[in-house]
Amino acid sequence: MTSQLNQRGAFELASALARREITALDLVNACLERIDLRERDIDAWAALSPQSARDRARELDAGPVRGLLHGLPLGVKDLFDTADLPTTYGSPIYAGHRPVADAAAVALCREAGAIVLGKTVSTEFATYQPGPTVNPRRAGHTPGGSSSGSAAAVADGMVPLALGSQTAGSIIRPAAFCGVTGYKPSFGKVPVTGMKPLSENLDTVGGFSLYVKDVALLLAALSGDHALLDIDENSTPRFGLCRTPQWDAADVDTQAAMEAAATGLSRHGAACVEVNIAAQYSGLAQVQTDVMAHDAARSLSWEHDRHAALLSPGLASMLQAGMDITRHQHEANLARADAARRACDAWFADCDVLLAPSAIGEAPTGLDATGDPLFCRMWSLLGLPCIHVPFSSGRTGLPVGLQVIGRAGKDRQALHAAQWLQDRLARQ
Amino acid sequence: MTSQLNQRGAFELASALARREITALDLVNACLERIDLRERDIDAWAALSPQSARDRARELDAGPVRGLLHGLPLGVKDLFDTADLPTTYGSPIYAGHRPVADAAAVALCREAGAIVLGKTVSTEFATYQPGPTVNPRRAGHTPGGSSSGSAAAVADGMVPLALGSQTAGSIIRPAAFCGVTGYKPSFGKVPVTGMKPLSENLDTVGGFSLYVKDVALLLAALSGDHALLDIDENSTPRFGLCRTPQWDAADVDTQAAMEAAATGLSRHGAACVEVNIAAQYSGLAQVQTDVMAHDAARSLSWEHDRHAALLSPGLASMLQAGMDITRHQHEANLARADAARRACDAWFADCDVLLAPSAIGEAPTGLDATGDPLFCRMWSLLGLPCIHVPFSSGRTGLPVGLQVIGRAGKDRQALHAAQWLQDRLARQ
Repeated sequence: MTSQLNQRGAFELASALARREITALDLVNACLERIDLRERDIDAWAALSPQSARDRARELDAGPVRGLLHGLPLGVKDLFDTADLPTTYGSPIYAGHRPVADAAAVALCREAGAIVLGKTVSTEFATYQPGPTVNPRRAGHTPGGSSSGSAAAVADGMVPLALGSQTAGSIIRPAAFCGVTGYKPSFGKVPVTGMKPLSENLDTVGGFSLYVKDVALLLAALSGDHALLDIDENSTPRFGLCRTPQWDAADVDTQAAMEAAATGLSRHGAACVEVNIAAQYSGLAQVQTDVMAHDAARSLSWEHDRHAALLSPGLASMLQAGMDITRHQHEANLARADAARRACDAWFADCDVLLAPSAIGEAPTGLDATGDPLFCRMWSLLGLPCIHVPFSSGRTGLPVGLQVIGRAGKDRQALHAAQWLQDRLARQ
Repeated sequence: MTSQLNQRGAFELASALARREITALDLVNACLERIDLRERDIDAWAALSPQSARDRARELDAGPVRGLLHGLPLGVKDLFDTADLPTTYGSPIYAGHRPVADAAAVALCREAGAIVLGKTVSTEFATYQPGPTVNPRRAGHTPGGSSSGSAAAVADGMVPLALGSQTAGSIIRPAAFCGVTGYKPSFGKVPVTGMKPLSENLDTVGGFSLYVKDVALLLAALSGDHALLDIDENSTPRFGLCRTPQWDAADVDTQAAMEAAATGLSRHGAACVEVNIAAQYSGLAQVQTDVMAHDAARSLSWEHDRHAALLSPGLASMLQAGMDITRHQHEANLARADAARRACDAWFADCDVLLAPSAIGEAPTGLDATGDPLFCRMWSLLGLPCIHVPFSSGRTGLPVGLQVIGRAGKDRQALHAAQWLQDRLARQ
């Protein structure tokens, strides 16, 4: 019976916990059973704390309802500091590191009643060198990165909620590859304190769960934006189909998902328009790449200076590329980003949200790379809210979906549209 | 002879070090002698590392010139992580804390050849509860805060350069009270990685030294913006005298400094215009207060949740006030700030820089408070570059000066004007 708990979304579980229909302890045990069964194949976890999770569950079951996340087990990407669990940021430089304090996002979840089950695998400093995690949908395929373990753990039913972060495509891409819902909020919506920084201009806290309503709940707790708790509306969202300047890089599975969405949404009565991004913005993905490299080279200057031998060759060359970007070039990049942020409201002139590819296609074969964040870079640079909704599958049967993108700060509207789409296209 | 080294600015010392006219070891020893003599009266330092500073000086003296800060002793505000020195963030919660890594700003200074002499006293988490530091200009007076130790150490000749940070007025105010040059760059110019965060929307890394040229050198090393190395220009800056909406709060000493500057600048041939801030912006100081409280409550959520008894009553009530600010109010505050950032270029229509009060007046009596950041709040919210230039004194003989404020991102232009003013008004 407890095993069925793993198939229910966090929002539904939170209601059942608050009404005392289920106990936090049963839910934690269901998660731990699943982990026992599957972790040796999936490697989603960098550290686990079963005993303190059970202790905390008993405390919560015995006390008043603590907050929005009361009793919900949570996976925490190993990029976030935790005072009671090792924190490696996915790097051997920090093997055995135990921070003094929790990251703000972790403390906010705990205050809201979440139970930290453990730390999930991150790539090296949230960049490209993978950890050991395997895609739970099919062995031998990458789960994506950098929030590899969080996406895989949620996809496998090990935990109903997990924290992630995105600088380029580290939430949306693994959500797409693992077939779960991933939500990168508007830039600045959640404090990044205690999360290992890559780029102050881009780093964004977000999360994973089964359904749009679930990630909205997580973000309501993290941001204090309680409007996210009610994303149901009678209105039918208007979608803008945005193939993006990178469309030629999308493979047939992603292209087919776009066509299927267009057909399906129209059938359900949603207005769909084509939104074309003007040529002058086609370079934004490269601007994101350069801003990230510039900032990462400076944020990781201690690691680069003192522990160069423990950096992966790929990261070392990314940091070198970043050091070679001059202050002048960087400021020109930031100015281009700023101009695009001011202009991009126009893309929403005839629609409430955009619908765009999340990834090139299905999760690629191989565990030595995490796939390409190409289709996420522009939106990360612009700081717009993005929600990946899984609703289809590709030629080999692995999950495929699309991302819903909102105006800056209009997270609720984006979540509403994403849920509307999920309700109609994914639960058919 | 070495004692005279303490009276020379960092820029001049850096040139002498690079030309091998003086040794880093002599300079470190001169600083340590001064500290030996004065520290028991001033309490500027939270931790010192004389031996490793001497060792590093010998290494640098024996090797090639390492970078812009080659051989310069540096004080590091105890808000920045250091791997080789305790880091308390000014709070008993972190007594004895030793971080794994250096903050990015510390690593960047070290890479440029700076020698970390020790950690300087910060108020509690860079807010308002003072440390023990005494104003070196007169016992019994506050040095200001939160970068209390950095400002006092530079003012007393203990070190030629020190790192600081500003969220409300934590660089400009202590610079004013201690009579040194303080520079808060444009928001985002230096990575904040490894500095204990208060507010992602406001926190800015900067520093202290004797002259404008010296802080420009420090920031050139921190930001990679080498244009800051050459702030001499033939052109005469045009100043906008900006009494700000808080003018009534300025005491006679600050008001007299404004009049003296207006007279002096005109005498030296600089154009001076009056710049009035429209009434709609008079609430920006309050917006800054609220944004800071909101963000601090979330950034310090672990400390608040786990160690409430170790927070000062003042900080506890600031965090409570911050928790009471709703997401909706906060977003309205950020929108007001954003609108003002877009509008404030108009204030520079007839001038290159603004000249405005740095503080209410001379350093107040008493060590139980650090003075009011009122005159800094608006500029911190707007993210504009600010340089405090000491050039006068008040009724009791303590230092008074003004801040030069530039357009966002135009740090070099602001530094040029500040140096022009310092050369003419402060070295008469």
